[in-house]
Amino acid sequence: MFDFKWSPTEKKIAREAYDGAWEVAIGKLLAEFKRRANDAASASDIWAVEAWLREQRKDIGEMFDYRYSQLPLVFAWAIREKHMDIERLAGLSADKLKRIRSLRDFSPGG
Amino acid sequence: MFDFKWSPTEKKIAREAYDGAWEVAIGKLLAEFKRRANDAASASDIWAVEAWLREQRKDIGEMFDYRYSQLPLVFAWAIREKHMDIERLAGLSADKLKRIRSLRDFSPGG
Repeated sequence: MFDFKWSPTEKKIAREAYDGAWEVAIGKLLAEFKRRANDAASASDIWAVEAWLREQRKDIGEMFDYRYSQLPLVFAWAIREKHMDIERLAGLSADKLKRIRSLRDFSPGG
Repeated sequence: MFDFKWSPTEKKIAREAYDGAWEVAIGKLLAEFKRRANDAASASDIWAVEAWLREQRKDIGEMFDYRYSQLPLVFAWAIREKHMDIERLAGLSADKLKRIRSLRDFSPGG
């Protein structure tokens, strides 16, 4: 399905966009984590944060997957989550951008 | 091994000491949790807090065990961890206090 060819220039663009999205995602996670920790007032609040962290770690580990076959999906998700703008991908081929937009707009079950 | 009889008065003393130790333990956990969350600055810091929380939850779940057969061990541990003072147990029979002190002073591998 994701059998695109990536030129060296495209690989550089992708790497920078990916790293930028990662920084944004982790920054948001850190802020939300600190907010939840700050609000915690009981043992069950603490364990709720622990469960939330476990979930976040799984989601982030699954989504940030730097294989070229997976990148269109990763970028579509990162854009939807507002971890990056599609403008960061300027310079990718039209077919890749089209695929990413299509995945971004795809709403499972929606 | 822990086949003591507990009078109604002793049960009341034990319950209050246990609940007090729990409050102290959770208060310390909350403070340490907030400190670690506040210091976190990276993804790996966040996952380190998650792993630490999982460990804490297991330790606390294992140690706070309100079965009369387990209480001497629970109190010995809580005293060692400074979650309570042995004075909170004044009114328990001498044999129970002796057992608790002996467990408190027992240092596995030490």
